[in-house]
Amino acid sequence: MTASTRQMHLGAFLMETGHHVAAWRLPSVQADAGTDLRAYTTLAQTAERACFDAVFLADNVAANVAPGADRAPRSDRLDPMILLPALAALTERIGLVATVTTTYNEPYHVARKFGSLDVLSGGRAGWNLVTSDNAAEAQNFGRAEHMGHAQRYDRAHEFYRVVAGLWDSWDESSFVRDKASGVYYDAATLSVLHHRGKHFSVAGPLNVPRSPQGRPVVVQAGSSEAGRTLAARTADVVFTAHTELASAQTFYSDMKARAVVAGRDPDQLKIMPGISVIVARTDSEAQERFEELQSLVDPVAGLAMLSRMLGNFDLSRYPLDGPLPDLPVTDSGQRSRQVLLTSLAGAERLTIRQLYLRIAAGRGHHMVVGSAERVADAMQQWFESGAADGFNVMPADLPDGLTRFCELVVPKLQQRGLFRTRYTGTTLRDHLGLRKPARLATALQNGV
Amino acid sequence: MTASTRQMHLGAFLMETGHHVAAWRLPSVQADAGTDLRAYTTLAQTAERACFDAVFLADNVAANVAPGADRAPRSDRLDPMILLPALAALTERIGLVATVTTTYNEPYHVARKFGSLDVLSGGRAGWNLVTSDNAAEAQNFGRAEHMGHAQRYDRAHEFYRVVAGLWDSWDESSFVRDKASGVYYDAATLSVLHHRGKHFSVAGPLNVPRSPQGRPVVVQAGSSEAGRTLAARTADVVFTAHTELASAQTFYSDMKARAVVAGRDPDQLKIMPGISVIVARTDSEAQERFEELQSLVDPVAGLAMLSRMLGNFDLSRYPLDGPLPDLPVTDSGQRSRQVLLTSLAGAERLTIRQLYLRIAAGRGHHMVVGSAERVADAMQQWFESGAADGFNVMPADLPDGLTRFCELVVPKLQQRGLFRTRYTGTTLRDHLGLRKPARLATALQNGV
Repeated sequence: MTASTRQMHLGAFLMETGHHVAAWRLPSVQADAGTDLRAYTTLAQTAERACFDAVFLADNVAANVAPGADRAPRSDRLDPMILLPALAALTERIGLVATVTTTYNEPYHVARKFGSLDVLSGGRAGWNLVTSDNAAEAQNFGRAEHMGHAQRYDRAHEFYRVVAGLWDSWDESSFVRDKASGVYYDAATLSVLHHRGKHFSVAGPLNVPRSPQGRPVVVQAGSSEAGRTLAARTADVVFTAHTELASAQTFYSDMKARAVVAGRDPDQLKIMPGISVIVARTDSEAQERFEELQSLVDPVAGLAMLSRMLGNFDLSRYPLDGPLPDLPVTDSGQRSRQVLLTSLAGAERLTIRQLYLRIAAGRGHHMVVGSAERVADAMQQWFESGAADGFNVMPADLPDGLTRFCELVVPKLQQRGLFRTRYTGTTLRDHLGLRKPARLATALQNGV
Repeated sequence: MTASTRQMHLGAFLMETGHHVAAWRLPSVQADAGTDLRAYTTLAQTAERACFDAVFLADNVAANVAPGADRAPRSDRLDPMILLPALAALTERIGLVATVTTTYNEPYHVARKFGSLDVLSGGRAGWNLVTSDNAAEAQNFGRAEHMGHAQRYDRAHEFYRVVAGLWDSWDESSFVRDKASGVYYDAATLSVLHHRGKHFSVAGPLNVPRSPQGRPVVVQAGSSEAGRTLAARTADVVFTAHTELASAQTFYSDMKARAVVAGRDPDQLKIMPGISVIVARTDSEAQERFEELQSLVDPVAGLAMLSRMLGNFDLSRYPLDGPLPDLPVTDSGQRSRQVLLTSLAGAERLTIRQLYLRIAAGRGHHMVVGSAERVADAMQQWFESGAADGFNVMPADLPDGLTRFCELVVPKLQQRGLFRTRYTGTTLRDHLGLRKPARLATALQNGV
């Protein structure tokens, strides 16, 4: 290890067949991996052998069956909160993070699912708190249109408070289970939430004991003003998308400053940009694989993906080799991504085809194609220049993209003292260097 | 095997430390087993080695913190839909059934959870569809009081139709995943639900492929008129509570007749009463264990349990050794149980103390205490006299109660040709002798 003791954190962002929209068409990829427990088990165990902090799963509560969706694997997926418990049973140490929306859920259910996963896994659970970004989801939950941005964040903030309060229903000593006296729990330690707010009315307590890590880790991914405000106050980890170093640095400084304003230790808010990686033994070999993937992008699938990332704006009547038209600002959860992509297209004068090819692998996240040296250099630069506390690693194709990252890049990072060579703790908070949270004052005040 | 090919079905109803309210106080019982994956894994694998059709988990979406609840383990529990996926990963064949309420959930979430578990487990999932029976649950979901009985069943019926429709979103051939052509799914096979009803508006489709067994198995436990009507039309399995053979026979005939009226093959509706078992090598050894358990019943815990089973009627101001007072008919989900228990108390002139001791092990289910011969005889009698197609086995204490049942009773049933000696199929429907359901006509009509 080098003199510096600061080490980066790594998430393995596992998405079906890989993050590249055409990965499923590669001969090496199992096309139905997105619904196969064995495939996910291989991935989680690979990441665990490499000492990743966590696996990370995305989610949507709707099938994507928009035009062109039949050309890519985003319509069939296992509920991540069904997949993660199975992976918990088949791994020992790695953290288990899943996305669950606050827009179309009830806080009691969410508190309970993550609380249960946290107890079941020995303190390895993390919740990626998001607001929902698509109208197809709204229509599965009795709404004609999705909630507006401001309303979603208002709801999300209250949702978080309820969930955190429920997680604090019991303390570590509550369940005495004393056979001799017959006392199962100590009622004096119980805290009943009695929450009554604008969006929710939730009595509590939760029927799950306190987590071995205090509370599940909370991850957030919003980059809008409302998203940043919520994250600065409540998140343990922020997952974010930046194409360029400068933008990542600005975001990083902003979030750390906001954490200070919120009265928090900025080191307890970890900033983890996504990094889309295509790595091989040499730069040219990596480039070849990237080009192979790019050659497999069906224009229908590419256009459908781009349309989705822009807030479901229909691009089909514009020429593929013409410029991106001016777009109305979306009110969906894709607003920050829309800004990122339209800026990128404008700055580099990209055609529609060039733009979808540009994001085919990483959807606007930082992309590195090259040797392990090149990938490690890029990660070290971001890590050491105030842009990142770690990365959510997005392999273009699975399982090979993850295996190559673990075999080629992780040892390089370890040699440089930038990444652990073994787990030193047992919980996800241990891995992330996050302190165990104290029980919320609101919960304690309500104690009976 | 005997000449008869009809064999019984067995569920292992796993409840924390065992069904007896004082089981957790036995020296042989792990007091925190209710939140320990390893303990549940041992149980599920034990049941699987004995070729049980399924494990069965109860649920509540509230902690029981009513007066006296601190004297028994019903306040901390893992979400069964977090526990079952973990058990799916650690077992091969046994079915996995969990209770999820229709009263405080959204059908899209429920369809997705069970659909995902069914795919992940290779077709072993079952949903015990219930309506919620307690006000504490209502208060966790923004309601001051729980929904009335009629409204709950009206909602449950529509809930089922939505869930079944969502499960039929795709057919087995939908996901072609053809690498050469780039076609991931065949849009012509997709069926979009577009449900608009009194309680729900759900567009669909579900983002989970069709289950390997067609659809997850649906279990129901309602015994009221509304509950029977719903079950006769929609359930694959009915779980029911009867103290006496005659009552079980009446229920069995009634349900089979209702299935015929609903246009169904009555053999495709399996009736499985609960059976509370305390078995040992000899009758007297079993009786000793029962008495040991009974001696550990704390009057506070016993009274709290009885109060809950009667619909949360407060019994604390009545003398323990006096008669059960006249009770108002509860509108909670405990209505059928209340009738059963008040009839029992009346017929046998039981005091309050005698009544809670009577139900301490089995909560009003058929109870057998004795040798394997005695238990097998009782089960055979019910099975062969039109009272049961199988049983949901409720061990008084865990894990020993289940281990003894598997070691002592199962071989007896197998010797008599009444139970399988190995699994012949792979899915829960295979085990239960249920045909794979056809895709719903409503779904097909909506096909695009």
